[in-house]
Amino acid sequence: MNIKKVNFNTSSTTFYFAAGIAHLKEFVDVQHAVMLVDEQVFNQHAKRFKGWKTIILKSGEQYKKQSTVDAIIKQLIELGADRKTILIGVGGGVATDVTGYIASIYMRGIKFGFIPATILGMVDASIGGKNGIDVGVYKNMVGTINQPSFILHDLALLNTLPEIEWQNGFAEIIKHACIKDAVMFRELEANSLKKYQSKKTLLCDLIQRNALIKTNVVIKDEFETGDRKLLNFGHTFGHAIENTYKLSHGYAVAVGMVMACMISEAYQGFKDTNRVVELIKKYGLPVHQSYNAKKVIDVMKADKKKVKDVISYVLLQKIGKAVVEPIAISEVENIITQLEAK
Amino acid sequence: MNIKKVNFNTSSTTFYFAAGIAHLKEFVDVQHAVMLVDEQVFNQHAKRFKGWKTIILKSGEQYKKQSTVDAIIKQLIELGADRKTILIGVGGGVATDVTGYIASIYMRGIKFGFIPATILGMVDASIGGKNGIDVGVYKNMVGTINQPSFILHDLALLNTLPEIEWQNGFAEIIKHACIKDAVMFRELEANSLKKYQSKKTLLCDLIQRNALIKTNVVIKDEFETGDRKLLNFGHTFGHAIENTYKLSHGYAVAVGMVMACMISEAYQGFKDTNRVVELIKKYGLPVHQSYNAKKVIDVMKADKKKVKDVISYVLLQKIGKAVVEPIAISEVENIITQLEAK
Repeated sequence: MNIKKVNFNTSSTTFYFAAGIAHLKEFVDVQHAVMLVDEQVFNQHAKRFKGWKTIILKSGEQYKKQSTVDAIIKQLIELGADRKTILIGVGGGVATDVTGYIASIYMRGIKFGFIPATILGMVDASIGGKNGIDVGVYKNMVGTINQPSFILHDLALLNTLPEIEWQNGFAEIIKHACIKDAVMFRELEANSLKKYQSKKTLLCDLIQRNALIKTNVVIKDEFETGDRKLLNFGHTFGHAIENTYKLSHGYAVAVGMVMACMISEAYQGFKDTNRVVELIKKYGLPVHQSYNAKKVIDVMKADKKKVKDVISYVLLQKIGKAVVEPIAISEVENIITQLEAK
Repeated sequence: MNIKKVNFNTSSTTFYFAAGIAHLKEFVDVQHAVMLVDEQVFNQHAKRFKGWKTIILKSGEQYKKQSTVDAIIKQLIELGADRKTILIGVGGGVATDVTGYIASIYMRGIKFGFIPATILGMVDASIGGKNGIDVGVYKNMVGTINQPSFILHDLALLNTLPEIEWQNGFAEIIKHACIKDAVMFRELEANSLKKYQSKKTLLCDLIQRNALIKTNVVIKDEFETGDRKLLNFGHTFGHAIENTYKLSHGYAVAVGMVMACMISEAYQGFKDTNRVVELIKKYGLPVHQSYNAKKVIDVMKADKKKVKDVISYVLLQKIGKAVVEPIAISEVENIITQLEAK
């Protein structure tokens, strides 16, 4: 186990890397804890949750919505959860987003921690305090920013992870490489998903490295006034197609990164779109999705990153170096309409 | 107009006392504002809201619930509200609680301000950053603590205030006197509701004084680990009967204060229950409500102020001096069951 405590503006989070759920009892009082566990994770690892109060969360982004929140709050009341209760979210990004959100509003805020059970969760979704739910096709339209007390990684949970979830996780790893780490980009080019799956130490190192890339960006800019926006690379277009075309998050971001690279060529003279496309393909992710430009633009117009008629688009100058470029929504509309036919 | 800026832990609120809605344009950009206005206030003062984007809120505690939040969020998306939008809640405690809550979760948090349109709102509900909604009979079960950017008092809005709402507001004023201000308690004994209604300067002074009593308690203890709990005087029992017996908030608190006085006699040797009872009666408020002890205890068991099996009960040592006494829920149950028959 590798313990690392990081400080945010008004709170701190302790990481327990390369740990196990069994370690949890060393720092959480079982009597005061309620676990919100993703259904698939619970079914595949039921033994690990013995002795803990658990509420089962249905798996999938379609359950990241208000009716799920309503149902869980009802269960928390029935369980007698009070202000001393700590909620522990176990699962992918949906489980941790929903847990963080409920803990932030239940009785005006109680403590919470995360045990991410996917690559995506470990390197991205569990980190940074953003939580929330979708409203219709609008992703994360409602939520808060509130840091978990702890994040514990149990790599044994990855043993049952489906291939598509490995791919989803690597979409965010590739994103981190694109915006912040050219060395890691080359490492990803030299390796493969199979290699990371078979070499646990290599994987463990990659996960911890990516968790800390995201953490460091967030620490510098918790409330997303500057550098944190870079983490949205691939996400503007990605979010606009994710729910509309029922893509997994990583798939949508992969397509979004390719779109952002093409826009980067025009606005920033970016020259390595092809390397990004090849790397995305190498990790089993899609580089294209047919779409209806009008539908996509309608969702983009409601994107949280849009302020009035301008979108803060994250573009690449080169691999490892990203910038935020304000682009008028009308221009984005032109680009997306032109590319629709291709 | 009397401007006063107060600082909380991580934010500040500017009070505009003795002001008017017409002043709003001096510090709020109309283009970026959406007003959430209580239906009765809007109907009675429609002219004042001309030129502002408005969403109408149905009047009454029964609308302080998730389905109202869902409907407003949908309207905000349709209006194109983004992260630069400021929400302005206009009305009583329900309007400001709902507005503060929605602003705290919409797009993970946008700015908000309040124009309380009731005495209760001006002296209590709009102040301190607590917001939220009820879940079934459980009051404020869901919410956040988040301070408004501004609070503006327009006493002209009180011209149409129904008598019961004057009484509701004075319940909290009497509460402030009981826990913090023996001088004001005597002033209230010497005056009457009619006198305050007819003498605007007397009323203006009383409202500002009470707004600052509450503000000062909150500043010292924003997240309610100590002194802020005193503001719950009359509220433990009050909240337990409010929704169950469909009482107005002030009526429930008035009955709750009498209950707290009786418990104070036993636990703190308090001797002035009769003076509190007489003052409550003088301002048109009830001092008794028939109840079913089992029902009341069930709601109390889910009260946010309960931690495990102990309730932090706010009791009086004397008029103007309150203390928090931890009482086992089983003892509270005994007392309430004994008093049920009386």
